[in-house]
Amino acid sequence: MKARVHVSFKNGVLDPQGKAIGLTLANLGFDGVGDVRQGKLIELDLAESDPGAARKSVEAMCEKLLANTVIENYAIELEED
Amino acid sequence: MKARVHVSFKNGVLDPQGKAIGLTLANLGFDGVGDVRQGKLIELDLAESDPGAARKSVEAMCEKLLANTVIENYAIELEED
Repeated sequence: MKARVHVSFKNGVLDPQGKAIGLTLANLGFDGVGDVRQGKLIELDLAESDPGAARKSVEAMCEKLLANTVIENYAIELEED
Repeated sequence: MKARVHVSFKNGVLDPQGKAIGLTLANLGFDGVGDVRQGKLIELDLAESDPGAARKSVEAMCEKLLANTVIENYAIELEED
């Protein structure tokens, strides 16, 4: 089973990387781009085949390592092989 | 309209950050985690409301700035406000 974890800054947390992307897009001539946020996308191959157990395990990984829950949100998507 | 761009390394491209996450998960006691890949997730607020025009514009942004197409793939998801 594959898991995809999206880690993004919570609203209100400053995102200088996203800001830099937004400014550069404007400098390149792309108009009409408002707020830009950059997050992380982590893709995991899991041996676990039960979706419930897989989600629980990936949640524990997020809380312990993948996301800093003080400033970041995470979302988990599971996909059968 | 909102656009989400997933930028990930192409298959075969070395991903040291993903490797480090995989090793750390194993050290933390998470078993059964195979390959781990880390990519980027870029969220854009667009003034454009036509999906076709929005996708075309975001594709141009990816080719010019958001992804290094020599070693990275990108996928675009559009979402109505």
